[in-house]
Amino acid sequence: MKQYLKMDEWKIIENHFDAENNQISESIFSIGNGYMGQRANFEEQYSGKSLQGSYMAGVYYPDKTRVGWWKNGYPEYFAKVLNSTNWIGIDISIDGEAVDLAKCQVNDFVRILNMKDGYLQRSFTAKLPSGKKIKVDAKRFVSIVQKEIGAIKYSVTPIDFDGVLTISPYLDGNVKNTDSNYDEKFWDEIYSNSAMGEASLTVKTKKLDFYVNSSMKYDIEQSGKKINFNARTKLEKKFVGNVVELKIKRDEDTTIYKYVANVTSRDYKIDELENVGKTILEKAFDKGFEELLNEQAEAWHNKWKESDIVIEGDVSAQQAIRFNIFQLNQTYTGEDDRLNIGPKGFTGEKYGGSTYWDTEAYCLPFYLSTADQKIARQLLIYRYKQLDKAKENAKKLGFTKGALYPMVTMNGEECHNEWEITFEEIHRNGAIAHAIYNYVNYTGDKSYLGQYGLDVLVEISRFWEERVNFSNNKGKYVMLGVTGPNEYENNSNNNWYTNRIAVWTLEYTLQVIDYLKNNEPERYAELHNKLNIKDTEISKWKDIIDNMYYPVEEKLGIYLQQDGYMDKEQILVKDLDPKNLPLNQNWSWDRILRSCFIKQADVLQGLYFLEDRYDTATIKRNFDFYEPRTVHESSLSSCVHSILAAKIGYYEKAYEMYLRTARLDLDNYNNDTEDGCHITSMAGTWMSVVQGFGGMRVRNGKLVLNPFLPGHWNSFSFKVMFRGTLLKIDISKENVVVTNEAEQELTITIYDEDILIPGEETTVIVNKLRN
Amino acid sequence: MKQYLKMDEWKIIENHFDAENNQISESIFSIGNGYMGQRANFEEQYSGKSLQGSYMAGVYYPDKTRVGWWKNGYPEYFAKVLNSTNWIGIDISIDGEAVDLAKCQVNDFVRILNMKDGYLQRSFTAKLPSGKKIKVDAKRFVSIVQKEIGAIKYSVTPIDFDGVLTISPYLDGNVKNTDSNYDEKFWDEIYSNSAMGEASLTVKTKKLDFYVNSSMKYDIEQSGKKINFNARTKLEKKFVGNVVELKIKRDEDTTIYKYVANVTSRDYKIDELENVGKTILEKAFDKGFEELLNEQAEAWHNKWKESDIVIEGDVSAQQAIRFNIFQLNQTYTGEDDRLNIGPKGFTGEKYGGSTYWDTEAYCLPFYLSTADQKIARQLLIYRYKQLDKAKENAKKLGFTKGALYPMVTMNGEECHNEWEITFEEIHRNGAIAHAIYNYVNYTGDKSYLGQYGLDVLVEISRFWEERVNFSNNKGKYVMLGVTGPNEYENNSNNNWYTNRIAVWTLEYTLQVIDYLKNNEPERYAELHNKLNIKDTEISKWKDIIDNMYYPVEEKLGIYLQQDGYMDKEQILVKDLDPKNLPLNQNWSWDRILRSCFIKQADVLQGLYFLEDRYDTATIKRNFDFYEPRTVHESSLSSCVHSILAAKIGYYEKAYEMYLRTARLDLDNYNNDTEDGCHITSMAGTWMSVVQGFGGMRVRNGKLVLNPFLPGHWNSFSFKVMFRGTLLKIDISKENVVVTNEAEQELTITIYDEDILIPGEETTVIVNKLRN
Repeated sequence: MKQYLKMDEWKIIENHFDAENNQISESIFSIGNGYMGQRANFEEQYSGKSLQGSYMAGVYYPDKTRVGWWKNGYPEYFAKVLNSTNWIGIDISIDGEAVDLAKCQVNDFVRILNMKDGYLQRSFTAKLPSGKKIKVDAKRFVSIVQKEIGAIKYSVTPIDFDGVLTISPYLDGNVKNTDSNYDEKFWDEIYSNSAMGEASLTVKTKKLDFYVNSSMKYDIEQSGKKINFNARTKLEKKFVGNVVELKIKRDEDTTIYKYVANVTSRDYKIDELENVGKTILEKAFDKGFEELLNEQAEAWHNKWKESDIVIEGDVSAQQAIRFNIFQLNQTYTGEDDRLNIGPKGFTGEKYGGSTYWDTEAYCLPFYLSTADQKIARQLLIYRYKQLDKAKENAKKLGFTKGALYPMVTMNGEECHNEWEITFEEIHRNGAIAHAIYNYVNYTGDKSYLGQYGLDVLVEISRFWEERVNFSNNKGKYVMLGVTGPNEYENNSNNNWYTNRIAVWTLEYTLQVIDYLKNNEPERYAELHNKLNIKDTEISKWKDIIDNMYYPVEEKLGIYLQQDGYMDKEQILVKDLDPKNLPLNQNWSWDRILRSCFIKQADVLQGLYFLEDRYDTATIKRNFDFYEPRTVHESSLSSCVHSILAAKIGYYEKAYEMYLRTARLDLDNYNNDTEDGCHITSMAGTWMSVVQGFGGMRVRNGKLVLNPFLPGHWNSFSFKVMFRGTLLKIDISKENVVVTNEAEQELTITIYDEDILIPGEETTVIVNKLRN
Repeated sequence: MKQYLKMDEWKIIENHFDAENNQISESIFSIGNGYMGQRANFEEQYSGKSLQGSYMAGVYYPDKTRVGWWKNGYPEYFAKVLNSTNWIGIDISIDGEAVDLAKCQVNDFVRILNMKDGYLQRSFTAKLPSGKKIKVDAKRFVSIVQKEIGAIKYSVTPIDFDGVLTISPYLDGNVKNTDSNYDEKFWDEIYSNSAMGEASLTVKTKKLDFYVNSSMKYDIEQSGKKINFNARTKLEKKFVGNVVELKIKRDEDTTIYKYVANVTSRDYKIDELENVGKTILEKAFDKGFEELLNEQAEAWHNKWKESDIVIEGDVSAQQAIRFNIFQLNQTYTGEDDRLNIGPKGFTGEKYGGSTYWDTEAYCLPFYLSTADQKIARQLLIYRYKQLDKAKENAKKLGFTKGALYPMVTMNGEECHNEWEITFEEIHRNGAIAHAIYNYVNYTGDKSYLGQYGLDVLVEISRFWEERVNFSNNKGKYVMLGVTGPNEYENNSNNNWYTNRIAVWTLEYTLQVIDYLKNNEPERYAELHNKLNIKDTEISKWKDIIDNMYYPVEEKLGIYLQQDGYMDKEQILVKDLDPKNLPLNQNWSWDRILRSCFIKQADVLQGLYFLEDRYDTATIKRNFDFYEPRTVHESSLSSCVHSILAAKIGYYEKAYEMYLRTARLDLDNYNNDTEDGCHITSMAGTWMSVVQGFGGMRVRNGKLVLNPFLPGHWNSFSFKVMFRGTLLKIDISKENVVVTNEAEQELTITIYDEDILIPGEETTVIVNKLRN
């Protein structure tokens, strides 16, 4: 764990240059706008350790898969998040000497991620090998107002000399993915052009034919005044740029403003790309850097208005939660229903794919509560659109009907290639079904069910129907050979969570069918026809609901992780010599598998999802049994434990669990932030605060709160969007203050009491859970 | 399945050239002598589909491993059987036109593997693209008398022209492994020399520094007379050779005799290699081809004397069983205790490694019964010598003591990289322990126990001791997370076979300790000290023996494959639409895993190994239950079923099971013979005949026979070496005729009756199991 960043409520600050931290900072200081993203690589050349990363959402590469031993059913490719044209590049040299921080003496280095306004800035002084000193100030952002636009302001001031400054702004398609399976490069050049003051480059992926055009334009100021200049053009393979030589004087700054538009064939026709890019670029260029930045700041202020969490008395927690919210908003905006939320967002290549069950299980609640419901709806429609591929996937695995959504995907096709996960971690199907329930329950938007929801529910139910089998031995339905959320057990039988979520899916599907029959009979008739729903299916589903086998431990009164779990040697994590942890770095895989240790919430994940079906005593018994056996080696584990701990009154535990992921990346807790940030687990942190500390639920169409204040904080507040109403909830030691920021009134339930809050008014309730 | 070979009792014959079959024939017609081996590649250039393969036993390459997702404990490399210098090459051209069968019209093609005499021959006429016709006759062998020597006789006769023949004998180190993980080449050149009539090439592996020197010498005859000739020398990178141009006349043959010695740094000092090679070569050259071939034939006749099986009335079966015996004898001779038996022997690269549990489970019985007991003993010592590596392997996986032998190895280190096999298919340890029992039981050589046996048994027992855990739930010891011989279930709990063989190991180890205490007290004292055997260990072993859990199905009276097996949907193979078979090519892996279908003998493997502990009724109940659920998709499955079927009187079934592997490669049953032959399963075929049809066992130091004659045969006979006595057993419909070919008398048990057979006499017993 490395802690080198400064505390601040609204900023991430690095105030010392250490090349060892650079790749970590490149991840943390990433900027993005849901359409594209950029790691915090330097604009100028840098020969030190760095992971170059410019990503265009939805532009991916089907890299030929790599396995040791092929298994039937494996996919041919693994879709890679694709490192795309480097558009930030501005090489700098002084009297012919390149400015490369790996070779300079660097002082006064400051890198700041300004989360309030949405930009990245960096400044430093550098003593070059020749002894000359310069000062550099840089600022850049990707616009959330005009998504294709990135803008950079980059200033150089000589401190102790007069001389010649060479500035070389460029676009470079000679990029690679470090995680390429066979060291291949993925881009071909299609078009390149370089003229004075501007350049344009179109590249195309070698497979799937994604085209990306990047166009740049720039101008230069000296001492605050725009200047005329001459530039040499540079045109090389997959590379376009300009080279400008300027005389510079001591203490006088030279500033380049570089504007880039990145457009892709996902949005425009291929033969229009260069023109479209140019048009968008010209408009941005005309506006100029400061106006673009003002727009950007204002747009970000609006986002914060809906999603901010304020924590008083703990600047570290404050910084962390804002960082998490900021990154989530940088990653996904809901504007494009073909996109989803990759585990690293735009901050690294690792894991490839873009969509895991993380989206439904952890990210959906964040977007549901902090943005217009259309955004969460887009996440659901994404899966609806991929239903045919999920049906193909089930066919490929030998099912005669139904849909199995992929574990990892870009376009709906499965990418992952470990049999125990790809083929067996099928609980993901349940989370995708549950997300529909979650969305409808939260928003009340039942129209979704007839429009899109039932199609998905029916096909998933059909999958479960075929995936279980009747055991004559048990006289019950069983589900064999699965991997639960706890990936530290593979190919297990009757994983309680998977059995439970499967039956829940069947129940909910039947419930939705009934709802549609009664409320949208015409639409239901259509769907009945289209989906060819058979009576025999429905009765089979009922039979499975009634006769599913669930492993239990009667004496302890708990649900059992899976068949045979109690045969394992029962040890608690606290009794383990800490040198064994994390298990996944210290134990061989078989040892992990046969141990009783659990990677992440599994039975508890089920109790979290289906909380209203279980009483607190049951949750408590299971929590008391499983949490001490859980190593939380998934960043997605702690939030569920935090929320359940809060629910059962374990407030200290809830806070402890929250802390485990709150600063996961900022403190490089797992020593892997250099690969990118853990975007999806950031949503879990948000959940810990709002659903855990805030106790927020939606029951029977009503928002429910049961807030408590973690003992370490003076107060905290969060915003919640609920059915068109924006609420601000302030929790202090004494009170819970609810402000209705909308015009219409709303009745919510706090501490089991219904309270009506008129529009634009504030209600104060006594904090009943004060520690 | 392709059947294109002719039937013959002593030969494998291909009498038509079909390029489509060439790679299959290259495997089948392979020659080897336990020290080196050579696929049946053509001497002359060939541009068609071919897998070039020249292998030197024990010379391997640690190819960087390739996995999709790394798991802790995986090995860094996979040891590859290494394609080595091509020493057979003799390029031929006519008036400058290369002779390449892929480009000629080929007639009268005959390829013969002469198994009686141990050589490969080939002849054909070829019409070249120019229209000229030639006749070629070629013969070659690798000597089992002087293991380093390979010799080739190659004749060319022009049929319809006079012209110029160019002969280019060479040695070529520019070879590759087609299964290289990253397409690397594995050899560097160290030394090369080419003079008139001879050449020498030394190459070295890029890792591990194996040196191989190949030296060649040749002479040429025309019309039966040695001629003088001029040769150009050819020296290229990793390539040495000569080029000889000769005038040839219609109908007059030109014959080159090429002799090669291949020596390696495994046997000689590096700086002596060229000289040693040259000395061996000169001796062979002086002897000449015909004398070498005579020696070869005589040596093979001696091998056949000890190991032949004769089948009357079924030439197809006769050919097949001889082919299997021939290949086994080509693969392993027992001369070098660092060697073992690779699954493909010297016939292909696939699977790499050299040692699987196949050796102990299937090959040991063959060598025990068909050769001097020293040879089987060498196979045991191989494991003894690798005990330290097996202990390291256990440490690596987190055990505090004990030894886990690798699944696949060259030098004792684990090479395999699938967690469900590498870490979990641990029953191999049991087979290695059982092989000690098997050897001692067969040979009566109890001296092995004190010399080598106990070390291995104690360390394996220690492994089992730590690998089981006490289940409070069951009040028994359990073994979790294993893969049994049936690899169609992974990470299962309480695999009956593994639990059983583990306990058997503990029992046998205690028995051996008692034996040594009583019979070799001094040696035992030494071992007790050296192995640091503790009383607490011994009492723990006893406790495990007494309290091991075995899954059973009470109602059916069978041992259960593993926990939960009866929860699977119970379907029989015969009720499966055949289009599903083989499952491993038609079903996704998860579907296979959750099905009840069994890949190869598992419970039955245990009943086979420990047969004398189970009554026939028990074996019958288990056979009746499991065989109908077994798809035999391992070539190692049928033999065990065949032997057990014979034991319980299912004679037709025994024969059916025998047929499944008898001609596996000759008929290319699994469509994979082009990769090489299934050497280890060939031993299983031998076992089916001798232990199955012959009912051969060893009990209480006595050879036991219970022969029956498969209804499809007129008679069959086999040879058995037993404690220095060579017996020939002839089984006809009427009688069993036992001939004692040794001088000393021997008492054996036939059909439960003890019969004394005096030296060099024959005894006739009535066949009591006639069908």
